[in-house]
Amino acid sequence: MKSNLLEQIHNPIDLRQLDEAQLPQLAQELRDFIINIVATKEGHLGASLGVVELTIALHYVFNTPEDLLVWDVGHQAYGHKILTERRTIFHTNRQLNGISGFPRRSESIYDTFGVGHSSTSISAVLGMAIASNLKGDFEKQHIAVIGDASIASGMAFEGLNHAGVTDANLLVILNDNAIGIDPSVGALKKYLTSVKEGKNPKQNNMIRSLNFNYSGPIDGNDIFAVIKELKRLKKIKGPKFLHLITTKGKGLQQAEENQVKYHAPGKFDATTGEIIPKSEEHLPPKYQDVFGLTILDLAKKNEKIVGITPAMPSGSSLKFMMDAFPKRAFDVGIAEQHAVTLSAGMAAQGMIVYCNIYSTFLQRAYDQVIHDVALQNLPVIFCLDRAGLVGEDGATHHGVFDLAYLRCIPNMIIHAPLNEIELQNILYTAQLGLEHPIAIRYPRGRGVINDWKNLHFGKYEAIEIGKAKCLKNGSKTAILSSGAIGNNVTLALAKIKQPENFAHYDFAFIKPLDENELHTIFDQFESIITIEDGTIKGGFGSAVLEFAATYHYSSKIQLLGIPDQFIEQGSIDELQQNCGISVDNLEMIFSSYSN
Amino acid sequence: MKSNLLEQIHNPIDLRQLDEAQLPQLAQELRDFIINIVATKEGHLGASLGVVELTIALHYVFNTPEDLLVWDVGHQAYGHKILTERRTIFHTNRQLNGISGFPRRSESIYDTFGVGHSSTSISAVLGMAIASNLKGDFEKQHIAVIGDASIASGMAFEGLNHAGVTDANLLVILNDNAIGIDPSVGALKKYLTSVKEGKNPKQNNMIRSLNFNYSGPIDGNDIFAVIKELKRLKKIKGPKFLHLITTKGKGLQQAEENQVKYHAPGKFDATTGEIIPKSEEHLPPKYQDVFGLTILDLAKKNEKIVGITPAMPSGSSLKFMMDAFPKRAFDVGIAEQHAVTLSAGMAAQGMIVYCNIYSTFLQRAYDQVIHDVALQNLPVIFCLDRAGLVGEDGATHHGVFDLAYLRCIPNMIIHAPLNEIELQNILYTAQLGLEHPIAIRYPRGRGVINDWKNLHFGKYEAIEIGKAKCLKNGSKTAILSSGAIGNNVTLALAKIKQPENFAHYDFAFIKPLDENELHTIFDQFESIITIEDGTIKGGFGSAVLEFAATYHYSSKIQLLGIPDQFIEQGSIDELQQNCGISVDNLEMIFSSYSN
Repeated sequence: MKSNLLEQIHNPIDLRQLDEAQLPQLAQELRDFIINIVATKEGHLGASLGVVELTIALHYVFNTPEDLLVWDVGHQAYGHKILTERRTIFHTNRQLNGISGFPRRSESIYDTFGVGHSSTSISAVLGMAIASNLKGDFEKQHIAVIGDASIASGMAFEGLNHAGVTDANLLVILNDNAIGIDPSVGALKKYLTSVKEGKNPKQNNMIRSLNFNYSGPIDGNDIFAVIKELKRLKKIKGPKFLHLITTKGKGLQQAEENQVKYHAPGKFDATTGEIIPKSEEHLPPKYQDVFGLTILDLAKKNEKIVGITPAMPSGSSLKFMMDAFPKRAFDVGIAEQHAVTLSAGMAAQGMIVYCNIYSTFLQRAYDQVIHDVALQNLPVIFCLDRAGLVGEDGATHHGVFDLAYLRCIPNMIIHAPLNEIELQNILYTAQLGLEHPIAIRYPRGRGVINDWKNLHFGKYEAIEIGKAKCLKNGSKTAILSSGAIGNNVTLALAKIKQPENFAHYDFAFIKPLDENELHTIFDQFESIITIEDGTIKGGFGSAVLEFAATYHYSSKIQLLGIPDQFIEQGSIDELQQNCGISVDNLEMIFSSYSN
Repeated sequence: MKSNLLEQIHNPIDLRQLDEAQLPQLAQELRDFIINIVATKEGHLGASLGVVELTIALHYVFNTPEDLLVWDVGHQAYGHKILTERRTIFHTNRQLNGISGFPRRSESIYDTFGVGHSSTSISAVLGMAIASNLKGDFEKQHIAVIGDASIASGMAFEGLNHAGVTDANLLVILNDNAIGIDPSVGALKKYLTSVKEGKNPKQNNMIRSLNFNYSGPIDGNDIFAVIKELKRLKKIKGPKFLHLITTKGKGLQQAEENQVKYHAPGKFDATTGEIIPKSEEHLPPKYQDVFGLTILDLAKKNEKIVGITPAMPSGSSLKFMMDAFPKRAFDVGIAEQHAVTLSAGMAAQGMIVYCNIYSTFLQRAYDQVIHDVALQNLPVIFCLDRAGLVGEDGATHHGVFDLAYLRCIPNMIIHAPLNEIELQNILYTAQLGLEHPIAIRYPRGRGVINDWKNLHFGKYEAIEIGKAKCLKNGSKTAILSSGAIGNNVTLALAKIKQPENFAHYDFAFIKPLDENELHTIFDQFESIITIEDGTIKGGFGSAVLEFAATYHYSSKIQLLGIPDQFIEQGSIDELQQNCGISVDNLEMIFSSYSN
């Protein structure tokens, strides 16, 4: 029986003691280790399995952490984490107070640049490489590993375009597996496929046109081939580009065969690969499916409706519409900027455009929202998925800034539905003809209505734009909630001793604010609490304060929401608790008002 | 004597009545018309002169406005405006209540999509083209005209990458003059030059790799050649790409020879081209020059300092440092996303990075500020030029959202200097070693201190982070201003009858707020006015409201700033007047407090 190599490796210094001939065994062990842990602890699987050989080869050939290695996005960095001093804590991956699911500078000296959003690696590594040049260090290596979905994003092109005219000591490794979370799209993907198939003469390679020393494509799951090429490239100065072909999910049959599902499969049987089914029958629907089913239903009845997603057809459930109406629903790849202005172009020609972007990723298209949509007052319908705290993906992925960064934009309507019914109804209302663009922001995960599909789906009611709703009357304090966090308020009020003291209002519209209702509230209540699943600074509560200042109200106002700090990973319940907006927190806060 | 053709052309329908042989005369007349008006009214000159032939050819060959034409950025669209029903009002260009300096949907049916920021045209036109397909209109033409500086921006690549895999009826025209506002940079520019020089075999063209039907390069100032090629392309379906070589400033010798200066030359002699010198000797310096001179001076003393600009070396005055330290100051092209993450990469390796981006363009890199800089707490120094109202460039270019969109980001320091001295001192302070990233936002144009360079330049004083300053004591009302708009407060207070009623505080730091000073102020004053050169919603005043709510202060607070609407073009004075923050406005407001 062979000894266990992986257990002997604390960090890459140990790795470099191994003979090259031992590395395939190590690769097998590392792969098994990842599979075994992710099978029970959940997380991202396929991407890391595909780069096991590359990960070992990089740390074997290069002198990390002196040589600087950046993993684009970071879904694929589990092997990297395990080989760099985090094997024994890897089971805490993505948990509260555990290690992050992504590389982070604060976690390890081997994580030279924090990642999470795609296509940052080339710019980051180029910055490091230029810094090395300026410091007179011309031996240091600077390496970016980027997938074929991520390299098609505009930001990556900007990095390549700059790097190509520098003498920076930079290696870009394209991890080409023809898939991101969903299959890659676009003309570049098509071109890369033609390169793989040998249809393009190497001397006129597109990457070479950008002044890179190009090599490849080679088999990225052949560890000896990868090591040989990395050793060769290590000696070459200037900007270099290595094109590797890998298989996402490599080594687990089901993961290779069903790459979308096994990107992050949840719990599965480590031996057979079978995904362990959850009993989900009696749970409320995911907001994503409420969106996906509703837009499909609306699209059947209104042929002007189109749907757009930047690379998240499965995650957003726009897939339902894409399958049914492939000509009217578009996955444009990791290209949020393009997605928004494309939407504006369509809206300018009279289409009704639902542009579905995760809240955290709309940050990538902020200028396009202002400049191409809001300034022209085009009624694009932004569906901001995964708004608020998102849980285990952590600090890079929480959608907590949207209320603040959208509220300052003229012409925007901002709506946060309380629940599945409000979500389907605002989606319905939006296609009746709006005078302004609208952002509809809803959370990751499940709603609160068990039988939504049977009882409510398709029974649309138009929502009056800018209208707040009184959910509960009360005598002493008014609670103003915006969005699904209002369900926490309802639960907390059910637990306190004197619920009759509290009125509860659903301010689904953060903008325009229902000023009539606010006048009524401020006339009646001397004490007001606002609550939102977003940053307090500049958000919904801040809007209420601006209203109060404008009309000289003197009621005492307490703002609840996300504090002014980045929030790490954990379950959504745990994070709400830490932010002071969980049901328990609210119960305590409300109780203190009753005393 | 030839008849004047231009005067007979109200719109492109008239143009299409002309014989092709008459078009060179029309081109000459159009060129003269542009020169004569811009010579006295000011505006963007070089770009429009370069595309006179293309402009005529497009409207001659295509059936505008049925066929949809989008000008990227729009600096080059003066000829288009003149030929499309705006010749007789063209002298109002860029003035208050006049026509916009950029195409705008609200201004003309020939302006199919509003522009101003670069690289949006391909996405917009693709959206229109897909909409036409969905509407069953397969004859309509959709045309984007984009410069070689703009096409190198990531967003343009995203548009090309998507368009290449569609059957959209789309023509992208590359107006390649090797210059944006400053000369173009980057690997793509180098590649385009090699194409022009015939060094790249056509069949392996990079654009063709993205699945476009590529033609060119041809001489874009040869009107017959352009018309012939447009007629040919009109018959071809699917995504097409025409590469034109033009000369920026064509037809005015000085403008051709000094393309940077004649991008927007101010007043000049229409016959000789000589720029009419302004007597500027005794005026205060431009904030841009305070930045440029100061960073150069600091860079001489601190070799860790680097400077970065995305395509604005002249406009930002980073040029001074680029000339003196070409290896430490970088023009990265129109690539704000890359600029920010490149800065983060450098900062991660210990460099002191001044990343100078116009406030309105930082919207393009919002995610990178959050995800790559602030989350990692890297002390990048953002210099936000042209913050606040910018004047004649109008709605697309005002830098009025930055306070709101930056204030919600954890870890950020935000500083708006009152004047030239505060600007140089905060630039100095930033390189002493900050614990956080900082955004320093300062206005377009001149400061307020006539002898700044002789009296103050180089005499640095460190600024305590987060400290507000009392500029003037008073008895009844406290005025809290942030940034250079505070000078309006000073001027207004000098004009009112009872200045002793007003205290005036300079809250240069919007974040962190000086809470000690605020406690003192709220304890003392029952009436408080905040004023900022940015959107009221979510801005500095909003921060003061949040403070007051947190500590249960009941003082009456009035917020002054930019209202919740897009602000059009005009002089800065005129726009301040319209927004209620001019000296006259403030005089009236303050006087009303004294009654």
